Amino acid sequence: MGRTSTAKERLVGAAEELMRGRGYGSLGVAEICARADVRKGSFYHFFASKQALTVAVIDAYWDSQRACWQGELSGEGAALERLERLLAAMTGVQRRAKEESGAVEGCMLGNLALELSTQEPDVRARLEEVFDEQIRLVEGALVDAAAEGAIPAGRAGREAAQAVISQLEGMVLLAKLKNDPTVLDGLWPHTLLLLQAADRPQGS
Amino acid sequence: MGRTSTAKERLVGAAEELMRGRGYGSLGVAEICARADVRKGSFYHFFASKQALTVAVIDAYWDSQRACWQGELSGEGAALERLERLLAAMTGVQRRAKEESGAVEGCMLGNLALELSTQEPDVRARLEEVFDEQIRLVEGALVDAAAEGAIPAGRAGREAAQAVISQLEGMVLLAKLKNDPTVLDGLWPHTLLLLQAADRPQGS
Repeated sequence: MGRTSTAKERLVGAAEELMRGRGYGSLGVAEICARADVRKGSFYHFFASKQALTVAVIDAYWDSQRACWQGELSGEGAALERLERLLAAMTGVQRRAKEESGAVEGCMLGNLALELSTQEPDVRARLEEVFDEQIRLVEGALVDAAAEGAIPAGRAGREAAQAVISQLEGMVLLAKLKNDPTVLDGLWPHTLLLLQAADRPQGS
Repeated sequence: MGRTSTAKERLVGAAEELMRGRGYGSLGVAEICARADVRKGSFYHFFASKQALTVAVIDAYWDSQRACWQGELSGEGAALERLERLLAAMTGVQRRAKEESGAVEGCMLGNLALELSTQEPDVRARLEEVFDEQIRLVEGALVDAAAEGAIPAGRAGREAAQAVISQLEGMVLLAKLKNDPTVLDGLWPHTLLLLQAADRPQGS
């Protein structure tokens, strides 16, 4: 959102900032335009609706997040170590938000999924694609983990990957509700149990 | 919301109906009053704000849900069978919503938790109490399960109960996102893994 960014980028950036804190329903186009310093008339030059802008916000957010997911999962070390690093990166985001703003903000994608899935079909469809990509990325790590003998072959599938993502989203929900990122300390031990990992949780 | 209900009860009922489908942010007091057939001037006779009404909605919702939770968990059978019945009741709600309205609505409490925790302190505080009560109820069942030898003593605590609730909320999120209640078929096998239950999942 520097001086050189375009109006369209500023709208996406402003909407993301506002949505992280407040979700979708209470936001108006006028407020997003004011935050982005873009005239309301220009908004509809770039986006047909608030829903269309929200899809662009999800795209921008996931484009940056995807790099993190792929980076952690394709890094050095055993497959479970890489998965642990990914989940540590996710929980780190919540810890930093608490330190910086005082509030555990939760996962923007999860927040929008629960708020909007029954209402805004384009948002729902895009979020479904993003979560499917996350599940496939985790599934890839589980296939590697099974090949390394760290988890049973039966836990290297889509259902186990969904369990891992569900545990992450559910624990982030509790951490947001309690505004307490230490709730997330249990995430990795729980994940090892879901995966029937050979190494039992160390209480880490 | 029958003919004999009072205006206050109608407001709570109308708000709950609207919030189940659309969350909180996009709802206005005028719309809630119209649905409840109550004049807007009367609204503030009963509730100081939309936030206060939302706390009343949560109270009414949890009062009815609590009876279900306690009933399932104090029923007949082994502790894990009772826990399985509770989770089956929760997933049954989502299946029925899909059949009746075409949409998996998700857990109203989880929806509100993710939408509002960083914004509405009274709603957050009440939701935290409700989730704490859920966690304590599950923890009680886990203590019984450990006494019966069905799970290790180390899984009969608060952290394991939080893992169970997290898995439930996370899977409901995915089911809502995909508008597909069959996602929840994996919930009980995952729960048994989280609890290190002696009986391994049967793929049920």
